[in-house]
Amino acid sequence: MRTTPTGRRRPFPRLEAGEAPRRLPDLETPAALVDLDRLAQNLDRMAAYTTLHGLALRPHVKTHKSPRIAAEQLRLGAAGLTCATPREAEVMSDVSDDILVAYPPVGAPRAARLMALPDSTRLAVALDSAVAVEHLTAAAREAQREVHVLIEVDVGMRRVGVSRPSEVIELARLVRDRDPLRYAGIAFYPGHIRQHVSEQDGAVARLTSDLAALIAALDRAECTPWTVSGGSTPAAWRMHEVARVNEVRPGTYVYNDRTTAEIGACAWTDCAFTVLATVVSTAVPGQAVIDAGSKALGREPLRGAEGEGYGALIERPDVVVTRMSEEHGILDLSRSVWKPEVGEQVRIVPNHVCVVVHLNDVMYGVRGEIVETTWEVAGRGR
Amino acid sequence: MRTTPTGRRRPFPRLEAGEAPRRLPDLETPAALVDLDRLAQNLDRMAAYTTLHGLALRPHVKTHKSPRIAAEQLRLGAAGLTCATPREAEVMSDVSDDILVAYPPVGAPRAARLMALPDSTRLAVALDSAVAVEHLTAAAREAQREVHVLIEVDVGMRRVGVSRPSEVIELARLVRDRDPLRYAGIAFYPGHIRQHVSEQDGAVARLTSDLAALIAALDRAECTPWTVSGGSTPAAWRMHEVARVNEVRPGTYVYNDRTTAEIGACAWTDCAFTVLATVVSTAVPGQAVIDAGSKALGREPLRGAEGEGYGALIERPDVVVTRMSEEHGILDLSRSVWKPEVGEQVRIVPNHVCVVVHLNDVMYGVRGEIVETTWEVAGRGR
Repeated sequence: MRTTPTGRRRPFPRLEAGEAPRRLPDLETPAALVDLDRLAQNLDRMAAYTTLHGLALRPHVKTHKSPRIAAEQLRLGAAGLTCATPREAEVMSDVSDDILVAYPPVGAPRAARLMALPDSTRLAVALDSAVAVEHLTAAAREAQREVHVLIEVDVGMRRVGVSRPSEVIELARLVRDRDPLRYAGIAFYPGHIRQHVSEQDGAVARLTSDLAALIAALDRAECTPWTVSGGSTPAAWRMHEVARVNEVRPGTYVYNDRTTAEIGACAWTDCAFTVLATVVSTAVPGQAVIDAGSKALGREPLRGAEGEGYGALIERPDVVVTRMSEEHGILDLSRSVWKPEVGEQVRIVPNHVCVVVHLNDVMYGVRGEIVETTWEVAGRGR
Repeated sequence: MRTTPTGRRRPFPRLEAGEAPRRLPDLETPAALVDLDRLAQNLDRMAAYTTLHGLALRPHVKTHKSPRIAAEQLRLGAAGLTCATPREAEVMSDVSDDILVAYPPVGAPRAARLMALPDSTRLAVALDSAVAVEHLTAAAREAQREVHVLIEVDVGMRRVGVSRPSEVIELARLVRDRDPLRYAGIAFYPGHIRQHVSEQDGAVARLTSDLAALIAALDRAECTPWTVSGGSTPAAWRMHEVARVNEVRPGTYVYNDRTTAEIGACAWTDCAFTVLATVVSTAVPGQAVIDAGSKALGREPLRGAEGEGYGALIERPDVVVTRMSEEHGILDLSRSVWKPEVGEQVRIVPNHVCVVVHLNDVMYGVRGEIVETTWEVAGRGR
């Protein structure tokens, strides 16, 4: 096991002595790169924040989908993991015995697959409907499996979640009435809080007062939530200000992306993930074409911040991928003095890293120009 | 081998006698469905059109990435296949010995991988730069492999391709000078012709006159192109009107999608591909949440036609996926009297099928409610 000078284990070791290093030009593009030092710093920073404030960290694995990263999150103190899909839960049960599926367990095939997780796994799910409770009850009884349930609450994102305290109480009581389900508390996802971190005061205050009112109602109804689970990377850093929240579920912080940087939830130099691409054409004036298009970069807009395009070069953030086809990305050179040549490699920070990881089977762990390790995106697929 | 009443082989057979059928409710969602009868009709229609007009059909496999579909295209008369990535070319070399890689072979790893295709494969590539010619020459000499070269011409899409006849002639001569490369002709991609099929007259006329001028110049320079390769699904149906075009490379026509239907390049009932999803939440009024988000549907806009959202229900085209997170799609119910229930299944026609297929490992071939067969998206990945 490798250690740093201070004795701390390096999670992603350097090459063994005598091992032939691969360098970036040896890689076929497009390829998904992870800067190992930035990854380690990002993991450390969130672990330190949550430890400092006594928040349980239950990172969402949707961003990396890799047991190897999850194992490192757990080693740094994470209380458990959050998953969205059955595939993620299956893969992560190899490294964690405490998994929250933050997704309604609707549909018999999905519920059955969750029940087939190892018996040693403490399984919790988040849901927002009586139908989901009944589906889950049927599956849990069939499997004779205890399942902890968080009631999903809408705090303003308008996606899933009930919003009235009476609805939360009704579902909590229904869960309590459905052995072997166990009412465990509430979950919310403040994904609508996407403005610049310095401008979140209003949203955080509103969230605090809404949650206080809800929890007071739950207390009065003798449905006090043991777990109050929130999170998302942009909002996570403010969760210690929100009374009664005791768990956060950020995902993106491991890699970060252009959106996270633009809204001030990380620095540009905290972006650990890039897509390595090659300039394949400069035939059309004013632009360069790279071999990373929508099948490599996704087509996610920048959110909560100004800015066009689908990603920017990590070394030249003024050069943006402004158009894409499936396998072509167009770099707009109109604001740059840079004149790339056909064959040159570039590295793009995508707008939204989670969807880009989902497009890849393998991550290449790099330090500088050296590819030190690779790992599988084992939780990809269905 | 199964045959129809008229003796024609059914490419995707019905279940064997005694085989237990799976029905749609047995599938875990999201799942990628292909209507087998519509697929067969779509394959037949393009094969008939190209046969009628004496055009070589070299379908682009980027849409399906499946040797099983490619084999059926070849059985119906396709002259060969078009690929974009080395992975696609490798997988397709199992079913075809005539492959065009319509992508600049830039970068040593990419070129080396193409050279490693079976010796029996007639390999052609399209390129638009002297640098690409030199990369390819080095790789072809090292591998002692003949490679046919099409010069990529920009006919208005402003993506890749040279636009001046003098540049085409220069590259053609360079290729002729670089044994074992073989100058074979020109390729263009009219992907910018995306307006409604009935409104393409102007674009088709412009393309015809531009190509005529270019080919006249090539003839004068004694660089007469043997192959003049065009295509794309929306434009393919007009290619018989464009003089000297002798090959088309449509991809999307096998499955079609919401864009193809909206621009009139197919009927809504020709859409063979849908994403099967489950309603997982109706907690927020006015909408239903399905378990297909951007990781299942992509985030492609509708192009060349009016219309919001990322896909529409095949049975209720007025119900559109208006917002998405990674694993959540929001169906806007404001214009529909339909009141879906949690647990109900729906089928979505995505805006752009090619990027959606790329998100899947497996296709489910269906007739009605019955899952008759499955196949692997073997060309996915890198």
